[in-house]
Amino acid sequence: MKNTFGNAVSITLFGESHGPCVGCVIDGLAPGIPVNDAYIAELLTRRRPAGAISTARQEADQFIIESGVFHGKTTGTPICIRIPNEDTRSGDYNRLARPGHADYTAHCKYRGYEDYRGGGHFSGRITAALVAAAGIVIPALEKKGITIQTNIHRLAGIPGEGSACVSAEMEEKILSAKANGDSVGGVLETVVTGMPVGVGEPWFDSVESVLSHALFSIPAVKGVEFGDGFALTEMLGSEANDALVATENGIITETNHNGGINGGITNGMPLLFRCAIKPTPTIGKAQKTVNLESGSNDVLQAKGRHDPCIVHRAAVVVEAMTAITLCDLLTTHLGTDWLGEA
Amino acid sequence: MKNTFGNAVSITLFGESHGPCVGCVIDGLAPGIPVNDAYIAELLTRRRPAGAISTARQEADQFIIESGVFHGKTTGTPICIRIPNEDTRSGDYNRLARPGHADYTAHCKYRGYEDYRGGGHFSGRITAALVAAAGIVIPALEKKGITIQTNIHRLAGIPGEGSACVSAEMEEKILSAKANGDSVGGVLETVVTGMPVGVGEPWFDSVESVLSHALFSIPAVKGVEFGDGFALTEMLGSEANDALVATENGIITETNHNGGINGGITNGMPLLFRCAIKPTPTIGKAQKTVNLESGSNDVLQAKGRHDPCIVHRAAVVVEAMTAITLCDLLTTHLGTDWLGEA
Amino acid sequence: MKNTFGNAVSITLFGESHGPCVGCVIDGLAPGIPVNDAYIAELLTRRRPAGAISTARQEADQFIIESGVFHGKTTGTPICIRIPNEDTRSGDYNRLARPGHADYTAHCKYRGYEDYRGGGHFSGRITAALVAAAGIVIPALEKKGITIQTNIHRLAGIPGEGSACVSAEMEEKILSAKANGDSVGGVLETVVTGMPVGVGEPWFDSVESVLSHALFSIPAVKGVEFGDGFALTEMLGSEANDALVATENGIITETNHNGGINGGITNGMPLLFRCAIKPTPTIGKAQKTVNLESGSNDVLQAKGRHDPCIVHRAAVVVEAMTAITLCDLLTTHLGTDWLGEA
Amino acid sequence: MKNTFGNAVSITLFGESHGPCVGCVIDGLAPGIPVNDAYIAELLTRRRPAGAISTARQEADQFIIESGVFHGKTTGTPICIRIPNEDTRSGDYNRLARPGHADYTAHCKYRGYEDYRGGGHFSGRITAALVAAAGIVIPALEKKGITIQTNIHRLAGIPGEGSACVSAEMEEKILSAKANGDSVGGVLETVVTGMPVGVGEPWFDSVESVLSHALFSIPAVKGVEFGDGFALTEMLGSEANDALVATENGIITETNHNGGINGGITNGMPLLFRCAIKPTPTIGKAQKTVNLESGSNDVLQAKGRHDPCIVHRAAVVVEAMTAITLCDLLTTHLGTDWLGEA
Repeated sequence: MKNTFGNAVSITLFGESHGPCVGCVIDGLAPGIPVNDAYIAELLTRRRPAGAISTARQEADQFIIESGVFHGKTTGTPICIRIPNEDTRSGDYNRLARPGHADYTAHCKYRGYEDYRGGGHFSGRITAALVAAAGIVIPALEKKGITIQTNIHRLAGIPGEGSACVSAEMEEKILSAKANGDSVGGVLETVVTGMPVGVGEPWFDSVESVLSHALFSIPAVKGVEFGDGFALTEMLGSEANDALVATENGIITETNHNGGINGGITNGMPLLFRCAIKPTPTIGKAQKTVNLESGSNDVLQAKGRHDPCIVHRAAVVVEAMTAITLCDLLTTHLGTDWLGEA
Repeated sequence: MKNTFGNAVSITLFGESHGPCVGCVIDGLAPGIPVNDAYIAELLTRRRPAGAISTARQEADQFIIESGVFHGKTTGTPICIRIPNEDTRSGDYNRLARPGHADYTAHCKYRGYEDYRGGGHFSGRITAALVAAAGIVIPALEKKGITIQTNIHRLAGIPGEGSACVSAEMEEKILSAKANGDSVGGVLETVVTGMPVGVGEPWFDSVESVLSHALFSIPAVKGVEFGDGFALTEMLGSEANDALVATENGIITETNHNGGINGGITNGMPLLFRCAIKPTPTIGKAQKTVNLESGSNDVLQAKGRHDPCIVHRAAVVVEAMTAITLCDLLTTHLGTDWLGEA
Repeated sequence: MKNTFGNAVSITLFGESHGPCVGCVIDGLAPGIPVNDAYIAELLTRRRPAGAISTARQEADQFIIESGVFHGKTTGTPICIRIPNEDTRSGDYNRLARPGHADYTAHCKYRGYEDYRGGGHFSGRITAALVAAAGIVIPALEKKGITIQTNIHRLAGIPGEGSACVSAEMEEKILSAKANGDSVGGVLETVVTGMPVGVGEPWFDSVESVLSHALFSIPAVKGVEFGDGFALTEMLGSEANDALVATENGIITETNHNGGINGGITNGMPLLFRCAIKPTPTIGKAQKTVNLESGSNDVLQAKGRHDPCIVHRAAVVVEAMTAITLCDLLTTHLGTDWLGEA
Repeated sequence: MKNTFGNAVSITLFGESHGPCVGCVIDGLAPGIPVNDAYIAELLTRRRPAGAISTARQEADQFIIESGVFHGKTTGTPICIRIPNEDTRSGDYNRLARPGHADYTAHCKYRGYEDYRGGGHFSGRITAALVAAAGIVIPALEKKGITIQTNIHRLAGIPGEGSACVSAEMEEKILSAKANGDSVGGVLETVVTGMPVGVGEPWFDSVESVLSHALFSIPAVKGVEFGDGFALTEMLGSEANDALVATENGIITETNHNGGINGGITNGMPLLFRCAIKPTPTIGKAQKTVNLESGSNDVLQAKGRHDPCIVHRAAVVVEAMTAITLCDLLTTHLGTDWLGEA
């Protein structure tokens, strides 16, 4: 449903890059979940641009919880979170469609009525609302023993170090691209521990289906793979299968090539998946494009502030989408109260 | 919603591998679409096992259209298609969980009540119903100028030849795996031409989100990438962006690294994506596993008939899921009658 | 979604009056629910025409469970139930639109492609599939202490006797209408006991919203009221409010003018609602109408076999829709396993 | 889905009576629909309390459009409308459950975490957001020739005069109830003209199903009937059926006992339905009830400001829900752009 996602727990997004605010409504969360403003702010800080490797656009990301929280806890009714926009400079953008962006496709889809400033409703800025909502969900999942961690797997071709940090070598690559008016991409790897066995539904609500649906909603994600993913295709069945073993602590698998999911349903092992993040499309280099007003060919040399790399900033967005999606699957399975119970 | 997928056009799956039948209900198709039984049969034949590289299980795949078709055309009301099961030998399976399959996860999820014979509701056999439904949708899309073609991109590590055919070299690899009681996987590549610009919705109903949701429902799919996908992550922004060019025939992109989708919305170029198909999990080789009745460790040496490779058989399933999903997005955008209009 | 209803538990309908069968797929039912074929048959018998006050059309209503049941219990995966059509005489109907039926509106909606025989997909015969599905749900609800009972509240203006039976006085009215080639309607009253407090969701998934959605899907239902319903509008607030009282057995209300629902959520008192069933539209009397082929005015004198009254037959359909709907609300609230647990 | 309703066009509600604001997100509206702030304000005025027959609570209902509107027109992306709360006096309410309200049921459902002040999320105040959203939809429908008009059919037992106005006789009844610390209810009648034939879907998305779902979401609605509704049940089939007649201007029905709907689908005649509005539950008179903190019996003598009658204020809410619901059905049928096209 367009800007609403989820069944038992759903999130609805709204807002534009250069409008008054971005925001979301998250509905179906169990009553009684503590809401920690400081933690939400911390998550938003992880998403915020910082340093020479990010855009110079500054956003305080002051979020306002408009509903659904009472005496510091979720009430069970919809939570609207609003994040006012502040540092918007519409003059930075003209009607030249930015290649790799939604400018041209939105223009066609909405027949010229779209808010084109800064990508409008297609701006990555909307993900701040997702992150804020996840700031309520993630601690509740952690209380239930479920943790989500996203690392940089590769950035501009350089292997990560098992953390969310940009290494010195990566930073060099980013700055070199930036100096050339260019940008780089990378791969994020996410591990979820503590998921109970038996979550997910057959066929269309398989964990892979629902998670990929959510992850591909994040701008710049162009690939998603679970477990060994594409590498599985070059393995033999005897290598790809994860042997099941009964242990004192229950049944586990010896390996985890399938990323904690069999037949679309969790098997109790860590969920493991990777997202391909393409290089930021907005770059300083001259690019052939089309003027959306005149329809004629032109050359774009973007002067707006833009990120030479968003891979590291996207990590928390991937965690946020993962948390919200798993929360929906768990609530479907275990009922509306489970997540808020002690 | 578990076994139902789609909004304007939806498909509901039912059936088990060793029950009376598998089937589906497809709802929301425009009235007036011609239904060609011979074409449906032809599609089912493409999915059916054949030759030494497939399972010896034989299914006639006689399909019965139970509703929604009158005088050879869709009526606009739900179409139920039923495919009776015939060559089922339940004795081939015992309660040893097959590693890589849903046996263990379904057992946990359904608390022991699942129909475990041959994978039950998680069997790839259910995809026959998807293919039959697509046998109605695909010709209707073609009439509108939209074609879907899936090729073998790689199989057991061997590059494909731009077709859906298993090359001699691939066949050799499959037979060698088979001889060892093993199996192989591969990558399928799909190209969709003729999609109008502006299809797909922002954020959660992006074309990538909705298609990946559908594709990951297909058993054995463990990765999906659009355009250059994971390879985009090692390119510069200036390489990954597709320049927009105004031509006599409208606006196009010079390259298609983004697979015909920007901001989640079609840009009028061919849709292009790849699915990773893991090696068939059922293999003859001895595997460590757990007996689901006793809960104790055991060794499985599968004696059932199984496919040493399903990559080539999966191609038509990918096309089917793609057709049904695009039909839903197009119907959402253009209304309930469009697809059936002359 | 057209022919699919429900979230956690959903039902999908298919079939036509004169096609091969009618049927449904019910998905999301908990695993482990016993399936009692004899009980399903009994429910279908309650719906079946019988005696002089019903149509002479005879249907054995042999139902076939095609999936989702194993060893006599639900598996947790979709249950497809199919009921073959037998006694169909298409010759009884021509292209004169029957006033009060969907003939004309379906003809417009589906642009002439509809299966018009016997009302096609709009026939009340489809409700047999609903009733069969409820034959699985109702005993499971009863095990949880929830019972559903529908009585004839009024029939042809004659007050009911607190039962589902057609009184002698009512029968006389029906036969008199029949003798004149006419038909009668009535009001059904449903009481549900044992519903836990706190079921239903605010606003759009209020118990009233969801139940009325389901009930108005039943052909011939033209009004639904909860508690004292329309009569409440002539009461004072002090009369309409149900006083809350703390008792040894928990909090109850002294009266039940609100039908067990406050703010859209169950309050633990019996649910109580009434459905208005209009007189059967198919009658023998001459009626002005339009020929759908020629578009010209004509007179219809229906010769088909038809019911002079369906009120008593509709009672079990109302119970079926109620059971399926409450099952969905309860499963949403309490999780996917609750209904199947001992 | 709890607080989200609709498929092609959906609305999501949020907010509490005594929180910072109430609001909604309406998604799926066609791009290019003019947004007239003055008209929205005018609709909100119709809902606002006024005069001696309403509560003394004053709300300026300043609405803020946070997204989805650009250069005075809808963009096609989600429109968030926020209405800050102003005149909230939490001291007026204590933890005595108000009979007839959601206080007790919400307390059970949300396990004590609900925002109980002024009814919280269950307050009728949330309907202001619905009305504001309809302020965008209604003029767009009118441009397409579709008008919606709700009249007072009866109020406190007194027949209406075919208008939305409270007659002198009705006002007297309201003031007399008020003087006694009591309240009255009534029946609203809605007529929709200009609906094309063929709108609505079979079975679960019948016009009656979808409209009743929406209407029963409005607090205080306890009954809904279409056409002659409950009165149909005392008519003969020959009286209840609407004869079809081919005229120069197309096919019409001679009468409209079925309220413009046959088989759940519009027939081109005016839609006609009535809603039963129960007397306002909050009254000054002493009522037996329970203290939600202590769980013990108590007596409530409400001192808060409350409406002795909301029937006249509810009329615009019924129109709003009707407009949004029909907009959804029309968009499903005719596609995402139709409503915004010239």
